[in-house]
Amino acid sequence: MPDSNITTLKTMLGHLDDAKKYQSLRDVLGTLQAADLAAVFEDLAPEKMPVLFRLCPKDLAAEVFAELEPATQQTLIEGLTDKELKLVIDELFVDDATDLVEEMPANVVKRILSQADPEMRKMINELLQYPEDSVGGVMTTELMELGPKMTVRQAIAAIRRLGVDKETINTCYVTGPDRRLLGVLTLRELILEKNEERYLEEFMDPDVISVHTSDDREHASQLFEKYGFTAIPVVDNEDRLVGIVTIDDAITIMQEEATEDIAKMNAIAPLDKPYFRRSLWEVYRSRVPWLLFLMISATFSSFVIRRYETALAAVTVLTAYIPMLTDTGGNAGSQSTATIIRGLSVGDIHPRDLPRILWRELRAGFLCGLTLAAANFAKLTLLDRVGIPVALVVCLTLMATVLVSQMLASAMPIVARKVGFDPAVMASPLVTTIVDTTTLLIYFNIATAVLRL
Amino acid sequence: MPDSNITTLKTMLGHLDDAKKYQSLRDVLGTLQAADLAAVFEDLAPEKMPVLFRLCPKDLAAEVFAELEPATQQTLIEGLTDKELKLVIDELFVDDATDLVEEMPANVVKRILSQADPEMRKMINELLQYPEDSVGGVMTTELMELGPKMTVRQAIAAIRRLGVDKETINTCYVTGPDRRLLGVLTLRELILEKNEERYLEEFMDPDVISVHTSDDREHASQLFEKYGFTAIPVVDNEDRLVGIVTIDDAITIMQEEATEDIAKMNAIAPLDKPYFRRSLWEVYRSRVPWLLFLMISATFSSFVIRRYETALAAVTVLTAYIPMLTDTGGNAGSQSTATIIRGLSVGDIHPRDLPRILWRELRAGFLCGLTLAAANFAKLTLLDRVGIPVALVVCLTLMATVLVSQMLASAMPIVARKVGFDPAVMASPLVTTIVDTTTLLIYFNIATAVLRL
Repeated sequence: MPDSNITTLKTMLGHLDDAKKYQSLRDVLGTLQAADLAAVFEDLAPEKMPVLFRLCPKDLAAEVFAELEPATQQTLIEGLTDKELKLVIDELFVDDATDLVEEMPANVVKRILSQADPEMRKMINELLQYPEDSVGGVMTTELMELGPKMTVRQAIAAIRRLGVDKETINTCYVTGPDRRLLGVLTLRELILEKNEERYLEEFMDPDVISVHTSDDREHASQLFEKYGFTAIPVVDNEDRLVGIVTIDDAITIMQEEATEDIAKMNAIAPLDKPYFRRSLWEVYRSRVPWLLFLMISATFSSFVIRRYETALAAVTVLTAYIPMLTDTGGNAGSQSTATIIRGLSVGDIHPRDLPRILWRELRAGFLCGLTLAAANFAKLTLLDRVGIPVALVVCLTLMATVLVSQMLASAMPIVARKVGFDPAVMASPLVTTIVDTTTLLIYFNIATAVLRL
Repeated sequence: MPDSNITTLKTMLGHLDDAKKYQSLRDVLGTLQAADLAAVFEDLAPEKMPVLFRLCPKDLAAEVFAELEPATQQTLIEGLTDKELKLVIDELFVDDATDLVEEMPANVVKRILSQADPEMRKMINELLQYPEDSVGGVMTTELMELGPKMTVRQAIAAIRRLGVDKETINTCYVTGPDRRLLGVLTLRELILEKNEERYLEEFMDPDVISVHTSDDREHASQLFEKYGFTAIPVVDNEDRLVGIVTIDDAITIMQEEATEDIAKMNAIAPLDKPYFRRSLWEVYRSRVPWLLFLMISATFSSFVIRRYETALAAVTVLTAYIPMLTDTGGNAGSQSTATIIRGLSVGDIHPRDLPRILWRELRAGFLCGLTLAAANFAKLTLLDRVGIPVALVVCLTLMATVLVSQMLASAMPIVARKVGFDPAVMASPLVTTIVDTTTLLIYFNIATAVLRL
């Protein structure tokens, strides 16, 4: 729903609430999507929240709750009685409940855990042990498990009985003793199977692709994209089925990873909050360390220029082309780094491809450099009317700098990955700083040689 | 499956093929995932392709075919008889068949359409009329439609009868006369419903969020993320249900859009192919136009420097800080542009937020600029030992340039969106070029004033 409609919705709900038309409010709430209603709650006065929340149908209330920002969840919890809190927690899926426990302060956590039933408490505690960026940290344990000797009829009956508490029933898992994963079956296959007495083991898919609790969550999200899954089973060290990751989690991971890459590639510490929810202080802290670091790194380029100050004083026109040369080097470098970083992150490129990459970038850089140098030579001699020797110096530098930048900049993210850093950090701003110094060194060396300074 | 396993797989399949062990080959193929088998096909000799393809089970063959690169699809089609081709096309989902028709040369298209049955041909022709980046261009028409007066029992029977040809049955749509969309029901709800004689209209969700055939496909993918859908219904101008977009398409769109954004943000024409599948020529063409354009734009900075050549000759030390100043301005600008572009693209930010954004960026830029200027003043006077007036000029410029860059750079993508351009094009390289000239103008004006040049 567009934001303007959200505003209309807020006004309408406000009027109904003021007029105490609770039955109408209840009716309206029932027609809304959880995400839209959550947007309304975010801006509600704290004392209004529990009132509106109590009017939501039970399952919608839990969905809305799971969509709220942690600060809003806390405010709402503080307005609920223990009994109401228990109802919400019982309706939450265990991965959402775990996220909640991770975000809340200690006293609220205590209240939540005391209201959760023992089974839920046990599952939350299990999930809490996994690191946040691991598969274990995003999986849920509420999956639909079936036996290999069940018939289609029995399986559907089991799903009818137990399915309501499962995060998804669209994919079901066939397990043997010790919860060992034997096969996978979709609800679609079960429903479309003509013979209701057929055993699951006869037509389940025994070649299951699974992930491990300790795998990187980005790895799991790549498998969703590659194989078109809607859920992936998660196994532990003893190869037992312990959970599933569902596609909605995979989408969140993908979007978060892309946002994180884009932030890092532009020298910003990633913030996992929407723009307007970040405080000014958070924005400042996410930007200033990189700006400072890069500013100090730029000192190298000042050193180079100061070393060649006398040469520059002799041929002052050389100064005029410094920004063009360093910018072009930086731009050429950004192109390569961005390509490689994205390739690594979607899985098209692997660190062992480095030699092939360098060979491609060498040729691409040569072609790009040649084109730019030719265009620039024409401009320098015809438009700027500088002498041939100066034009030669500028164009040779341009050629060399594009070539060197594209090779250097494509290698940097891969080297970063190899030594265990995040490749995205090696992106345009850092590349620019390194390329600048390199470009200036090339420029002054060529100038000294050609112009005999 | 990691690439090393794909290589092992290739070797194994090659051995079995050479030894003409076709039954074993058939058994092995049946255990594989379509995406992995497609990776094997990509590198197969053309004459081997039809042999291996014929050994695949029918439904796997169609899945593998849909995953192949267009060039490989064409090679394979040329090796198949008309009858075999017909079998493949009958098994394809209509959106994959449409993609195929869009990619193949005219003579192959003719052969494909002559083999497709009339119903399929009609659906392909309908889908072909929509632009590639519209919802119509990615939707499929094979959806599960139910009537409002059906009971749960009847609905499940209908799904059993017709579901096999549908792209998904996990979400079903309830339609009235003229295919008007009345409500949505998940297979989960149907299966979990205890009362098998209940009418669908009694418990379907009548508040359906749908998209229009002409909507931007990125809009549809944003809805998936926001509401956690696995399918979205598509309606036409008369509000009739004409198709669905499924979550696997949404994921492809999200990843393509993120890759496209990252490419554009780094001055590369987006290529929708993995890194190693791009020819050198394609890489060159995607990079050189932007490099040329930006190089020529950098001419402005040369103009500015040449205008102030005498001033620079008088105080040569000023030259040494040009790269540091322009780089810092560029970095500060990139931070803001990247933040805004990503915000626009995931839907956190709307063009009408411009005043709020400028106010935030003004304050963030002020704080960042102040910090950098203070740090730099200490460095200039203590380490570089330049005079206080020069240090003052550099630091005032730094302060002003960070402030101006962050405001300018945050406004640019929004203005671009407002006038109908893609915001991502306004990213760091273009910002850098504009910021450079601005920075130099600020620098020389402050220098002239403070140093009385």
